[in-house]
Amino acid sequence: MEQVKGVVKHIVLAKFKEGVTEEEIEKHIKDYATLLNHIEHMKSFHWGTDVSIENLHQGFTHIFEITFETLDGRSAYVAHPAHVDFGTAFLTILEKIVVVDFVPTLVKQ
Amino acid sequence: MEQVKGVVKHIVLAKFKEGVTEEEIEKHIKDYATLLNHIEHMKSFHWGTDVSIENLHQGFTHIFEITFETLDGRSAYVAHPAHVDFGTAFLTILEKIVVVDFVPTLVKQ
Repeated sequence: MEQVKGVVKHIVLAKFKEGVTEEEIEKHIKDYATLLNHIEHMKSFHWGTDVSIENLHQGFTHIFEITFETLDGRSAYVAHPAHVDFGTAFLTILEKIVVVDFVPTLVKQ
Repeated sequence: MEQVKGVVKHIVLAKFKEGVTEEEIEKHIKDYATLLNHIEHMKSFHWGTDVSIENLHQGFTHIFEITFETLDGRSAYVAHPAHVDFGTAFLTILEKIVVVDFVPTLVKQ
């Protein structure tokens, strides 16, 4: 097993409150992605909607994955005013959220 | 915004039951990774433990990320007997789990 060098993955699962519109969700996703322009520590931003088939999504509908090169970069992102502002607004439209970070170990065939 | 071609991400968050030992967890992670040898649709297997600092991990301690080239490959993996056997055993030691799949859209700086 081999550690993937220089990658920290930050994963956010979101379930929106009932009544939150598609337009509101789209605006927040755009604001989320716009953090890339403000926080240099963000190396990539991926997002998508849940298409799982095992019925274990627990109501989560949206997934966001941000990568950083270092845990320090991740910490700088978390503390960055642009992230704090975004996060504060984002939380107001969420019913629930999970945020996990990990330094991936890659297992190959 | 640009779709990442040919990638389906499958993310599993796990919280183990109280009393489950580190050895049991390690054995299950090894068994999980060994699916790579049985299911050709799995293109990569990454895992790690939560190191987040925002206190939004909701008790989840382990993260697994598997990639597939297509949703059909993902579905074949879900239905594969080796996965079903692993999943059945894995669930017995879990307090909770979230499984989401998504076709990532990449947003660049």
